[in-house]
Amino acid sequence: MQSYDVNTLLQKGKDLALQKVTVNGWVRAFRSNRFIALNDGSTLKNIQIVVDFENFDENLIKQITTAASLRVQGEVVESQGKGQEIEIIAKDIKILGIANSDDVQETILQPKAHTLEKLREQAHLRFRTNLFAAIMRVRNSLMFAIHKFYNEKGFVYINTPIITGSDAEGAGEMFRVTNLDLDHIPRDEEGKIDFSKDFFGKSTNLTVSGQLEGEAAAMGLGKIYTFGPTFRAENSNTTRHLAEFWMIEPEMAFYDLDQNMDLAEEFLKYVITYAMEHCKDDLEFLTERFDKEQKQKPAEERSDLGLMERLNYVLKNKFVRLSYTEAIEILKESKPNKKGKFKYPIEGWGADLQSEHERYLVEKHFKMPVILFDYPQEIKAFYMRLNDDGKTVRAMDVLFPGIGEIIGGSQREERLEVLDQRIAQFGIDQEEIWWYRDTRRFGSVPHAGFGLGLERLVLFVTGMSNIRDVIPFPRYPKSAGF
Amino acid sequence: MQSYDVNTLLQKGKDLALQKVTVNGWVRAFRSNRFIALNDGSTLKNIQIVVDFENFDENLIKQITTAASLRVQGEVVESQGKGQEIEIIAKDIKILGIANSDDVQETILQPKAHTLEKLREQAHLRFRTNLFAAIMRVRNSLMFAIHKFYNEKGFVYINTPIITGSDAEGAGEMFRVTNLDLDHIPRDEEGKIDFSKDFFGKSTNLTVSGQLEGEAAAMGLGKIYTFGPTFRAENSNTTRHLAEFWMIEPEMAFYDLDQNMDLAEEFLKYVITYAMEHCKDDLEFLTERFDKEQKQKPAEERSDLGLMERLNYVLKNKFVRLSYTEAIEILKESKPNKKGKFKYPIEGWGADLQSEHERYLVEKHFKMPVILFDYPQEIKAFYMRLNDDGKTVRAMDVLFPGIGEIIGGSQREERLEVLDQRIAQFGIDQEEIWWYRDTRRFGSVPHAGFGLGLERLVLFVTGMSNIRDVIPFPRYPKSAGF
Repeated sequence: MQSYDVNTLLQKGKDLALQKVTVNGWVRAFRSNRFIALNDGSTLKNIQIVVDFENFDENLIKQITTAASLRVQGEVVESQGKGQEIEIIAKDIKILGIANSDDVQETILQPKAHTLEKLREQAHLRFRTNLFAAIMRVRNSLMFAIHKFYNEKGFVYINTPIITGSDAEGAGEMFRVTNLDLDHIPRDEEGKIDFSKDFFGKSTNLTVSGQLEGEAAAMGLGKIYTFGPTFRAENSNTTRHLAEFWMIEPEMAFYDLDQNMDLAEEFLKYVITYAMEHCKDDLEFLTERFDKEQKQKPAEERSDLGLMERLNYVLKNKFVRLSYTEAIEILKESKPNKKGKFKYPIEGWGADLQSEHERYLVEKHFKMPVILFDYPQEIKAFYMRLNDDGKTVRAMDVLFPGIGEIIGGSQREERLEVLDQRIAQFGIDQEEIWWYRDTRRFGSVPHAGFGLGLERLVLFVTGMSNIRDVIPFPRYPKSAGF
Repeated sequence: MQSYDVNTLLQKGKDLALQKVTVNGWVRAFRSNRFIALNDGSTLKNIQIVVDFENFDENLIKQITTAASLRVQGEVVESQGKGQEIEIIAKDIKILGIANSDDVQETILQPKAHTLEKLREQAHLRFRTNLFAAIMRVRNSLMFAIHKFYNEKGFVYINTPIITGSDAEGAGEMFRVTNLDLDHIPRDEEGKIDFSKDFFGKSTNLTVSGQLEGEAAAMGLGKIYTFGPTFRAENSNTTRHLAEFWMIEPEMAFYDLDQNMDLAEEFLKYVITYAMEHCKDDLEFLTERFDKEQKQKPAEERSDLGLMERLNYVLKNKFVRLSYTEAIEILKESKPNKKGKFKYPIEGWGADLQSEHERYLVEKHFKMPVILFDYPQEIKAFYMRLNDDGKTVRAMDVLFPGIGEIIGGSQREERLEVLDQRIAQFGIDQEEIWWYRDTRRFGSVPHAGFGLGLERLVLFVTGMSNIRDVIPFPRYPKSAGF
């Protein structure tokens, strides 16, 4: 007897009519001692199992409770009821695992509305909720689309190191990695910690970005991307930050900033389109949730657009490209600035843009995704290419509605003498990044790249608002459960 | 003027004849002041640029040296020479980055034979060598095939946590993750380290496996896989171990061990086939290298098969499936055992198999890949399903020629009462893994999964022998450079 997952069963639908099949899953509901809604995680939808309870042992029927797991053998028939094309007339049911109803009531498996907070506390069980399973399938779809996009374009996927001995990137505070015995820390003659005794013979941390190593790879392989976990030891307990998150960082030899912007825009549109095509049911479900959530918000905080509208609006519009200098002019003259509504008023050129400014530009002024470029060098990283004006660098940030910055990137400084000035200016030790300087010594080339935080993207596509709800086991201050 | 990467140029070949194109790359060689071999990392092959030096400035010609980078505009013509279908007659050459010849001589960019050791010391530059670039392209191809395989089968890609507060898996020694100030470690009243002051409010480590979390995900989503970095703080300075490596761990609800073996075999054959189809040039090059290396070895250490033969032999043969008990019988009666040639003689049932035994079975006895299953429970992990004999567990190891164990997996213990016995037996704290036990409390189901170390697979496919040569920036004792 052929075994099918629920998704395949529902996809094949009537083609399977009158066939005998096996299907496994968890009981989502059991109505009237007759209709089981069975789900196996392969899709949001359930398959309806029709049970003629007179043909089954009473004790077995009693064990068919919410959250129990079953193996069902039966015949596929066209469904008389609404909402499904087919159902299965059960011939044989095997209880794989029971679920005690009292125990289930203590969990999020109990079929009623639970808070997102509660789901997080039971992160090991939330894969069995419609909401989180839908988010995970969308996340999966986005991740596959990311690999597919770069693969089709001839990029080489590179795994840059997670444990790093360098801290030059300066993207944020780092976690220490050690296997020293903290009760007996070895010290040198001056009483300083002797990291030569540590596993790697030096002080090591968790990476904050694979970019510098990615650049080295691109200097040989041409076009590469990294996709792996990155870390920040910052004590920010917000809905937008995680201590551990996944980042995609493409890096392209021979690309300038314009090509970098083109790639970023094409990339975002590609992966969003892919998820919309491959997760229709899940996104429909998430759109309903988003709408409900919006209705509960005060009017001024509500999104102008529904979830699907917001996705389509990103796909259909060409992103606005605007220099930092132009952005400052717009912001300085904007209503909220003049009326003192910005928490950080824009007084003039040089100001670092905050989320409120970015969202004003995207959501109010242009009503379109925006790519800002050519930022003041003081507020950007040392490796960004200096413009001829001597004041700005070839940085770019892609700004999205509801999210703010979703991508940050730049053309890199490929001229060794300029790079060295910037290294000195930032107080970085040349010796520390000898190998990075080397990539500019032997056939240096113009190159560019950017970074996308995966969870920010998943937030945008799923319409969720807390980043802890779009990663299986979130890590943040005081929380490393499971 | 259309810009192409070298791979696309060579693929299109004569179709581009007489077209004007732009191509970028690094100089691999410059013969007779006339023929530049240009490479951009998109393929092993170079494109030949023909320079009529009388048409170019003498100073420019002087800068066309090994490792320098160029932008060339020119016309595609059919090549008169051997070894290439097309070449480009240069109309304009721009030096993007010079490469000082004296400096180049100090590096692995100097076109002569370098040791693998030397390549490792200059890991930031080895992306520009034919050998390492070929390995990276094969690795990339395998990684994409892995995602493609699971995606086509409806698996959900899950990112399990890298930083973990649990140490139940017991797969190996772990690295500590902390942001405590090691010069001022907070202590409680008893003088013990107060980890409640650490970032996560508890003692945390780098993961050794995502399996337990993967199981929780599979208990909701059905079929999942993880693919991420894992860590071992073991002081093993060998050619087979890394402190940081990438692992793929599929986990399937409703699968038994036989289905697990079927999946593992299909998976390995799929990804190897994919790499062979998509990396022909690179694998040809690596086969030549492998043959040369074999010839330098003493006869008794030589591989019976060439690299391509070895790959084909894995593809064409059905893997032998053999119980541990049968394997012990074979090994006990084997010549090397009787003649005392094994470093660890096999005396009888219960012995833990070493690499020498695994390789004997695969390379000498069966001359085929072997899947061993049903191991003594004492030598396997607590979560493996106990057989009715009460002695063995439903473990499986896939053994490959030249590599030994490439995959380890099992059917998991889904019966809570048996799991609890095993947890007690292994001295694990039930409280520690409350959430893992939970997955057996609410509709537990039979399930199975396995782990594949990516770098072991890359070793096998590329024919390399040191695992440090198949990952961009290897981490091992006393080494975390770059």
